[in-house]
Amino acid sequence: MKKSIGILGGTNYLSTILYYQYLNENYQARFGGSHSCPLHIHSIDYHDIKTRYSSPSGWEQIPELLNHEIEILLRSQPSCIIIANNTLHKAFDLLGDKIKLPVPLLHAVTLAKQEALACNYKKILLMGTRFTMEDDYFKVPLASSGIEVMVPNQLERDEIHAIHAELASGKHTNAHIEFFSELSSRYSHLDAFIIACTELPLILNHIKLEVPIIDSMKLQCEKALQIFDYKTAPNP
Amino acid sequence: MKKSIGILGGTNYLSTILYYQYLNENYQARFGGSHSCPLHIHSIDYHDIKTRYSSPSGWEQIPELLNHEIEILLRSQPSCIIIANNTLHKAFDLLGDKIKLPVPLLHAVTLAKQEALACNYKKILLMGTRFTMEDDYFKVPLASSGIEVMVPNQLERDEIHAIHAELASGKHTNAHIEFFSELSSRYSHLDAFIIACTELPLILNHIKLEVPIIDSMKLQCEKALQIFDYKTAPNP
Repeated sequence: MKKSIGILGGTNYLSTILYYQYLNENYQARFGGSHSCPLHIHSIDYHDIKTRYSSPSGWEQIPELLNHEIEILLRSQPSCIIIANNTLHKAFDLLGDKIKLPVPLLHAVTLAKQEALACNYKKILLMGTRFTMEDDYFKVPLASSGIEVMVPNQLERDEIHAIHAELASGKHTNAHIEFFSELSSRYSHLDAFIIACTELPLILNHIKLEVPIIDSMKLQCEKALQIFDYKTAPNP
Repeated sequence: MKKSIGILGGTNYLSTILYYQYLNENYQARFGGSHSCPLHIHSIDYHDIKTRYSSPSGWEQIPELLNHEIEILLRSQPSCIIIANNTLHKAFDLLGDKIKLPVPLLHAVTLAKQEALACNYKKILLMGTRFTMEDDYFKVPLASSGIEVMVPNQLERDEIHAIHAELASGKHTNAHIEFFSELSSRYSHLDAFIIACTELPLILNHIKLEVPIIDSMKLQCEKALQIFDYKTAPNP
């Protein structure tokens, strides 16, 4: 059977486009001609999940909702799975043994940790939605591998969250670029920044940063593209 | 079971993004909140099909290749199907009785014909790839309903085809806009233009045209979105 990448998307749909574009551009660059990347997107109505983020009782239901959507994605029989959203990796982790996947899920947090370890980064700044910066789901796996994970201060987090919301609705401004240039200077003594969010790269790609970036989306996509290279297929 | 739209995409991937964006923007505008459109994209590697367009022996194989990809899309159990490419509708028609779909395929040519008849357009200019303008698959169904279908002259078709190729690789120029403004003036005595191609709207959306447009992509998407409106679900 032909290999293909499975994407759980729609969460939100603008960031799904970034995954789709990245995978296709890189597949095309590698294979040339009229090649486009073999993949399946199961693009969900995000509303049911997103409205549950803000309460603990909502969070009790999200893992099962995610499980159901992953089951639908698996009908397409992809060779590996990407969740095109960072926060939902918390829900995936909460599923624990309740989910048995027939193919590897290319986990954003695991990939970011592996990258930090491979590059020998000791002190890292984590940027993402307010939830991703304040919750433990991204920090703890890295900290337990000896990586010191810092987050922007309260005021900075508020601003990043506000900018994130604007980017998610398609707005870019020069003020955003200025804010992130200054933020980057304040934390330039660290080894790397993790961008655990699909919207912030829309701004950060326009800035010359003084520290290396770990972009969880790119890591997921690069790992997924390896299925088309028989020598380095991802391990389950 | 929840309703969803099935898209056969990757043909090419930039135009698949246009379908995905159109469906999501319009679903979001209608349902508000964090709603995104429930859909599945089976995005194929276009190379195998596209390299067969240029020869009759290639064309003998395309319908079966398409049939196989539609079977894979159907694994996701969508409520209706869109092929995100006009030329492949010829391959779909060639399948004839060999394909039995459990859900409606929202056929670009049929929808364009229905729209022309509903608006009482008698004389229409067909624009698309060279293949779409010179082949019969789009013209004959309209002509058999009494619609006079004209195509641009040889020189214009060459230019449209060249511009199409540039748009497909992501290039836009002012010269493109100028060419289509002039073309539009030359054919302004007709009732409508059919844009049977997903790339040309990238230019035509920037021009104030003197005649109405029938955009096959928009018709497919609008029809598909009706599945979410219980009163006007598409008929098989």
